Amino acid sequence: MIFSSALIENAVNEFAKLPGIGKKTALRLVLHLLKQETAQVEQFGEAIARMRQQIRFCNVCHNVSDAEVCSICSSHSRQKQVVCVVESIRDVMAIENTQQFNGLYHVLGGIISPIDGIGPDQLNIHSLVERVQYQGVEEVIMAVSPTIEGDTTIYYLSKKLKEFPVKITTIARGIAFGGELEYADEMTLARSISNRLPLENYVQNK
Amino acid sequence: MIFSSALIENAVNEFAKLPGIGKKTALRLVLHLLKQETAQVEQFGEAIARMRQQIRFCNVCHNVSDAEVCSICSSHSRQKQVVCVVESIRDVMAIENTQQFNGLYHVLGGIISPIDGIGPDQLNIHSLVERVQYQGVEEVIMAVSPTIEGDTTIYYLSKKLKEFPVKITTIARGIAFGGELEYADEMTLARSISNRLPLENYVQNK
Repeated sequence: MIFSSALIENAVNEFAKLPGIGKKTALRLVLHLLKQETAQVEQFGEAIARMRQQIRFCNVCHNVSDAEVCSICSSHSRQKQVVCVVESIRDVMAIENTQQFNGLYHVLGGIISPIDGIGPDQLNIHSLVERVQYQGVEEVIMAVSPTIEGDTTIYYLSKKLKEFPVKITTIARGIAFGGELEYADEMTLARSISNRLPLENYVQNK
Repeated sequence: MIFSSALIENAVNEFAKLPGIGKKTALRLVLHLLKQETAQVEQFGEAIARMRQQIRFCNVCHNVSDAEVCSICSSHSRQKQVVCVVESIRDVMAIENTQQFNGLYHVLGGIISPIDGIGPDQLNIHSLVERVQYQGVEEVIMAVSPTIEGDTTIYYLSKKLKEFPVKITTIARGIAFGGELEYADEMTLARSISNRLPLENYVQNK
C-alpha cells in the first residue's frame, strides 16, 4: 500500500498489529480518526497508553484491577468461601455480566496446554492452593472451557486440592438455552440426558 | 458490560467509538494490548495522537500530507497537466496502488449529495477551477463513484470547467477483470458493449 504521508502510514501499521485488523480496516479506522477533533483523538491515544501504564493485577485473584486488591476481592458483600477458577479476565467479565455469582474469582492466566508449552508453573496455581489452604475456602468452582486442555487443568487442580477439605465443582454442561436439540453434538446431548435435573430445578432457574 | 477496572472500561469505550467496532471487539483489542509491552502500547497511542495532531492537507490537491504541498504535487516526475478528480484521500491511495497513473490529483473531500446536505460549496471545487484556469491543466479525469451523486458531481464540474480549454474524461466503466458476465448488471453490460475496444487495446492492457 502506498501512503502519501508517513504519519498515516505509521498509524495504519500500528492499528494493523491488532488481532483481526488488516491493513484495509486499519486505514479505514485511521481515516475515520482523521475526521474527528484533535482533542478527541488525543483522548483516544491517551486512554490506551494510560490503561497499559497504570493497570495492575489483583494480588489475591490476579484479575485486572485499579488497586492492589480488586474491587471484587475487597467487596464486603461477596461470599469469600466460594472461589470460581477461570482461565482469563475475560471469563471473569462474562460471569460478572450474568449477575448470578456472588463469590470470588481466581484467574489462572491460561490453561495447561503442553502443545503451547504452558505447564502448571506458568499459571497462577500456587496462589490458588494457598488461598484454599489458609483462607477458609469451602468450594472451588472450575469454570474452564470444556476442552482437553480444560479437562487436564481441572484434573491437575483437583489433585492438588485433594488434601484440603474443600468441595470441588464444575459448571454445568448441557444444551444451551435457545439451542436446537438436533444440532447439539452427541457428547453434550448424552451428558445432558445422564445429568438430567428435576423439573422444579428447571422452573426455578428460568 | 461490567468491568472491574475503570482504566479498561475507558479504553474499551474509546475503541468502541470506532466504526465497525462494538464493545466485544473493543474488549478483545484492549485485552490484547494488555498483554503487550508497555512501551509498545505507548507507541500505539502516540502514533495515533501524533497522526491527528501533525497531519496537514496539501495546499494544492487537498490530499493528506506531511508538508504544505504533498509529495505527489511536489514531485518532478509527475505530469502536471493531467489532474485526476477523486472523492476522498482513500481513492488517491487506491489509484496510487495501481502504479499506472502519473498525473496529479484533486481531492474534492466528498461528493454533491443534496440528501446529506452536501452542496458544491462544501467541496474543494473552487480550487479545482483555479488550478484549471491558471496552472496549465490539459486534462481533468473524473474518477468518482458511478452513482447518481457521482454523476451529478461530474455534470456540475463539467459545466464549471466548460469555459476553459481543458479535455474532460471519465474513468472507464465496464465488466471488472475476473468478473462473471452473467452476474453483471444490465446497465454495465450494455455500456461495456457500446463502449467496446479494439482487440489491440485489450491485449496491450493485459
